Amino acid sequence: IDTKLPKVGTTIFSVMSQLALEHKAVNLGQGFPDFEPPLGLRDALARAMNEGRNQYAPMHGTAPLREQIASKTERMYGHRPDVDAEITVTSGATEALFAAIAAVVRAGEEVIVFDPSYDSYEPAIELQGAKAVHIPLIAPAFSVDWQRVRDAVTPRTRMILINSPHNPSGAVLSAADLEELAAIVRGTDIVVLSDEVYEHIVYDGRQHESVLRHPELAARSFVISSFGKTYHCTGWKLGYAVAPRALTVEFRKVHQYLTFCSFHPAQAAFAEFLASDPQHYLELPAFYQAKRDRFRALLAPSRFKLLDVPGGYFQLVDYSAIRDEDDLAFSRWLVEQGGVAAIPLTPFCEAAPGTRLLRLCFAKSDVTMEAAAERLCRL
Amino acid sequence: IDTKLPKVGTTIFSVMSQLALEHKAVNLGQGFPDFEPPLGLRDALARAMNEGRNQYAPMHGTAPLREQIASKTERMYGHRPDVDAEITVTSGATEALFAAIAAVVRAGEEVIVFDPSYDSYEPAIELQGAKAVHIPLIAPAFSVDWQRVRDAVTPRTRMILINSPHNPSGAVLSAADLEELAAIVRGTDIVVLSDEVYEHIVYDGRQHESVLRHPELAARSFVISSFGKTYHCTGWKLGYAVAPRALTVEFRKVHQYLTFCSFHPAQAAFAEFLASDPQHYLELPAFYQAKRDRFRALLAPSRFKLLDVPGGYFQLVDYSAIRDEDDLAFSRWLVEQGGVAAIPLTPFCEAAPGTRLLRLCFAKSDVTMEAAAERLCRL
Ligand SMILES: CSCCC(=O)C(=O)O
Ligand SMILES: CSCCC(=O)C(=O)O
Repeated sequence: IDTKLPKVGTTIFSVMSQLALEHKAVNLGQGFPDFEPPLGLRDALARAMNEGRNQYAPMHGTAPLREQIASKTERMYGHRPDVDAEITVTSGATEALFAAIAAVVRAGEEVIVFDPSYDSYEPAIELQGAKAVHIPLIAPAFSVDWQRVRDAVTPRTRMILINSPHNPSGAVLSAADLEELAAIVRGTDIVVLSDEVYEHIVYDGRQHESVLRHPELAARSFVISSFGKTYHCTGWKLGYAVAPRALTVEFRKVHQYLTFCSFHPAQAAFAEFLASDPQHYLELPAFYQAKRDRFRALLAPSRFKLLDVPGGYFQLVDYSAIRDEDDLAFSRWLVEQGGVAAIPLTPFCEAAPGTRLLRLCFAKSDVTMEAAAERLCRL
Repeated sequence: IDTKLPKVGTTIFSVMSQLALEHKAVNLGQGFPDFEPPLGLRDALARAMNEGRNQYAPMHGTAPLREQIASKTERMYGHRPDVDAEITVTSGATEALFAAIAAVVRAGEEVIVFDPSYDSYEPAIELQGAKAVHIPLIAPAFSVDWQRVRDAVTPRTRMILINSPHNPSGAVLSAADLEELAAIVRGTDIVVLSDEVYEHIVYDGRQHESVLRHPELAARSFVISSFGKTYHCTGWKLGYAVAPRALTVEFRKVHQYLTFCSFHPAQAAFAEFLASDPQHYLELPAFYQAKRDRFRALLAPSRFKLLDVPGGYFQLVDYSAIRDEDDLAFSRWLVEQGGVAAIPLTPFCEAAPGTRLLRLCFAKSDVTMEAAAERLCRL
């Protein structure tokens, strides 16, 4: 078979989770919590199954769930999307990202992405016959050089893909960043795709600058989020896209043939749970900030250098004081010899990043963090 | 927005379910049962959530579930796919169909599909920049004219998409049909995509002729099935693809960026349920045959002419004795004036089919069937 995706292997997340199992390593690689979704949510799901929510949900999501999404968006960002025409529930953020790209990007067009960035973006772009144009973020803060973005725009640019809080670095975009972006796309037909799955996880009093706070950008953007990161259920695969009516029409054309609809009992469960506890996510910053701080304290005696973490649940560490090798080699060594699975940055980049950084997930119980830290401090 | 899918509107299934609600019609349109998945399965799902199966499942599905799929395939069709390399769990058959098409079909290529056929096939093909080549099935039995298929093959033909038992007609392919297909693809690099979601629903002592019974075809096919039709949980969106290793490699490259993985607790629940009751599906033919026969008996006094139903859970009816109008107009009239939602065949076809047929779903409780029949017999 002559492959359509020559650059794609198995995702680093699967590879590392597998190696973690084989080597009995502490798994700080793939980004998932090792604690559970709220009991009330699980109970609501069990009830939904027993109350007959087992057949197809509406293609664009159940009305009560879309209603909750609209309310949250209004509360958080002062923007109330139309419940019928501007919200689509998807089988995780991954499906939403793919559908948004497939809906508007055509063969021969270009999509601007940042380096490093989540590994699903580029294959989704390539499957459209389009090209990902990579703009490196500026270490150590992983900030955007907007002049480079401006210079990269061509008549073929169809989309700019942003992600804040950023995976893997945790960098967050500011209101000024969104202004820069707005100035670049103004007067063009460039669509913005904003991956905001870590929207509720920002630290030190920061506020998440959703594209939905910016009316001019909101009018040309797909904003993607997910319940997995917020409610500790990454395996439930429930996400959504908020986009203006015209973009939503195109999005749904793809979504309806990609998965048609998402697991119905979970939609019913979230609608019920969110109606009774709409602001559950307000706990998240303090919850994860305590984890971040604890993890950093545990690693303080190690030879890793810790980068700042403004948002998300990943800690980037510089391992150059430990071994002088690239991140693929080091992460391999670390899982096999050091007993800890981490994620290298190379799979998030067009070319090897040249840095000596690894990503560690701290969405973990104290026991897990302590076990990992003990091993990491020995190196 | 200049659409990538000019022919696509909202699926007829959503449109008709919506109209059924608005007009308080009995909904025999969209294909879903109005009875529930087994209690043991729902209980197993609730348990899985409480036992911590709430984070990402392995990208290609949990090992115990793939093991059950392999065993079933071996028991039913005498073909045991490799558990690791030849089975991928997906977010419903729809995702599996899309992934298979996206994995191997390129811009400029052709895919042979039959008319009528399920409405997701063509948009998935068009999103690859490829072309669906439609071959009409021969009414009233909706059989395949293999000579027409042979004549339609060109050097650009990349895939032939078959579906047995067939939606909407219920027609089933015979072993002789598969031989014809094998003769056509022999010596080419044409891939077969076989949609077998109704595999366990065949009547009057028939056996389902899976492509997996045919080693030569199995070696070049994606075989797609789903748990939704078999276990009365169409809203759980769990399906899978069986394909030889080389095709599976390409399939997974797409799947991992389409949804990455599927709802984890359902995978755990099915693995447990199938381990304890592996042959549950053997009940299905008798169960649905009784429904089919009851529905036909109820409609016998009506002015509809009933076509044969060899498999699946749909009854095609000829309404030409009632009104002389096309199926879109008649199905609209029927839901608004007749109080029954049905599915016209036009959305399954490249051009208006010229027949006077509607599809009625009989995966319904006796009460539902009786209510519908009462209305249908009045016309
Ligand atoms: C879908 S597996 C990857 C999970 C994730 O978002 C990450 O680890 O970055
Ligand atoms: C995904 S909604 C359509 C369900 C179905 O398979 C049908 O009604 O044909």
